[in-house]
Amino acid sequence: LNKEAIKMAQQHLDMLTKPQGSLGVLEDIVKQLAGITGNPMPKLEKKVVIIMAGDHGVVEEGISAFPQEVTPQMVLNFLAGGAAINVLSRHAGAEIVCCDIGIAVDVEHHDLIVRKVRRSTNNMTKGPAMSRSEAIKAIEVGIEVAEEQIAKGASILATGDMGIGNTTPSSAILKVFTGCPIEKAVGRGTGLNDNGLARKAMVINRAIEINNPDPEDPIDVLSKVGGLEIAGLAGVILGGAAHKIPVVIDGFISTAAAMIAGKIEPKAINYMIASHVSEEPGHKLMLETLELYPMLHMKMRLGEGTGAALALHIIDAATHVQSEMATFESAGVATAKQ
Amino acid sequence: LNKEAIKMAQQHLDMLTKPQGSLGVLEDIVKQLAGITGNPMPKLEKKVVIIMAGDHGVVEEGISAFPQEVTPQMVLNFLAGGAAINVLSRHAGAEIVCCDIGIAVDVEHHDLIVRKVRRSTNNMTKGPAMSRSEAIKAIEVGIEVAEEQIAKGASILATGDMGIGNTTPSSAILKVFTGCPIEKAVGRGTGLNDNGLARKAMVINRAIEINNPDPEDPIDVLSKVGGLEIAGLAGVILGGAAHKIPVVIDGFISTAAAMIAGKIEPKAINYMIASHVSEEPGHKLMLETLELYPMLHMKMRLGEGTGAALALHIIDAATHVQSEMATFESAGVATAKQ
Repeated sequence: LNKEAIKMAQQHLDMLTKPQGSLGVLEDIVKQLAGITGNPMPKLEKKVVIIMAGDHGVVEEGISAFPQEVTPQMVLNFLAGGAAINVLSRHAGAEIVCCDIGIAVDVEHHDLIVRKVRRSTNNMTKGPAMSRSEAIKAIEVGIEVAEEQIAKGASILATGDMGIGNTTPSSAILKVFTGCPIEKAVGRGTGLNDNGLARKAMVINRAIEINNPDPEDPIDVLSKVGGLEIAGLAGVILGGAAHKIPVVIDGFISTAAAMIAGKIEPKAINYMIASHVSEEPGHKLMLETLELYPMLHMKMRLGEGTGAALALHIIDAATHVQSEMATFESAGVATAKQ
Repeated sequence: LNKEAIKMAQQHLDMLTKPQGSLGVLEDIVKQLAGITGNPMPKLEKKVVIIMAGDHGVVEEGISAFPQEVTPQMVLNFLAGGAAINVLSRHAGAEIVCCDIGIAVDVEHHDLIVRKVRRSTNNMTKGPAMSRSEAIKAIEVGIEVAEEQIAKGASILATGDMGIGNTTPSSAILKVFTGCPIEKAVGRGTGLNDNGLARKAMVINRAIEINNPDPEDPIDVLSKVGGLEIAGLAGVILGGAAHKIPVVIDGFISTAAAMIAGKIEPKAINYMIASHVSEEPGHKLMLETLELYPMLHMKMRLGEGTGAALALHIIDAATHVQSEMATFESAGVATAKQ
């Protein structure tokens, strides 16, 4: 990060008509954006939500409340503009792009970015979800999609996911990296009952036991107990960071991708802006591990980038504070007493 | 609240292409707005932030980092459009009105609503901050200002405050109503050091001891250890609730006003939407006492309505979700398995 730009941003913030530091996270965001972009008065010209969609062989084990066919159906819903992420992105003034990185079936739509690495992952309770080279290829797809959007003018990216069953690999990633007990890592996803939750915990334990992923090797973790959209989102984050573009991290699945990206390149964490803390119980632990601070507590558990889209408005607000507020001098306001 | 409208809002939410309940607080907001307005598809046509400004005799005791002259200076800054609340309201598509309900000096500006009940309160360490009739009059001013904005088409109100020293009466109100230890109620306000914080705690204890306010009589509490802008904001909340208009509650001072309003008329709490939890340590306890849930964790401590303005965008987003999302049927998406 550009330390000189952060210092200049701080100096300007301290001239504005408010007690120093009193805008809290808004000021932190301004400084982070200044450090990322090198501009002490950062602007977000174009906001893009990148949704990565993929399927999971592990759904065979009955770990999701929804059937796998919902993945392509929801992707078509994104492309038709009817999903929650469409509504929230429009409201935030953001564009959406959606990439098929591993849906089990073929989806045809002129706006869909098709970069299928493979059709769904394998059932990770019976062996690796994918090969090491497939995991690397999926990360590269994410980097490329991010670079395409940056080339088209994106000044901030937000991550979104679609993939029935994808809280299961996300919980597995969390457990492998932190060694936390399974109860801390697993949640109800889109709406499992108590039996479903117990089954899901067993499935995750079995997948980790059978594959024995190496927590020091993020590609190993990703290929054995991860997912294609998780790999793609890790690539989006790495691609954004490499081009000095901030990346807003959505919920549980996106933060699993952020953990992978942060293990591959710890400096990438400086480019991440957390959005919300979700209802998945493991999400808070993921954010703490990455030392990211979620500004929104919305009790959401939808994914798609919905929490990140809500945060985009707030991040935008932070940049407006820096560029539009009056200074103590210009407004003729007295400063704090000694 | 209109139970039929809440039920219809819930039925529609459950038809939308997302797992039931997965949008968390956004869904709660839709249902609350439905209950308030009677419309299961609520819309926010016009958003208005009402800022009440008043001064505090207790500043003589050295409980604020800023001098009292900042109150009128900041009011002029609001009217000139240069303060944080101006930037954040513009960004949220909200209007601002500012009312002088008790600034120590006269402020002249064609856009200022002048309803001065008196020039500043008295120093509450030496007797009541104001008389009982002044407190009632200040509440009535708040009701009137809210009614004027509702008559002009406001469909949602947000509360904002300006008044150097006003965390001190707010902490006193919290302590009187909850009986909490002083350390839980008092904070650094706009930036006190450790000595200033200790002095402020002593000042609050002395004001409560000398005045002995009756926690069962909110007007008594307000007149003895409250403030004119706090009374005005309590009136804004009561006025909104009486006209079935939701009121977004800002930070520590606004929530002190919400406590007063809720003691006067507990049903008014149903019309409150909490926005953020601030850095003032007592704010969380206030919100818990009112059973309000803050969606934003911004580490802010500015007041003015800044947290409420940020929340307006999210509340707006909730209404868009309800009116714009596709249903499972319209989008051809499969629903959850049994």
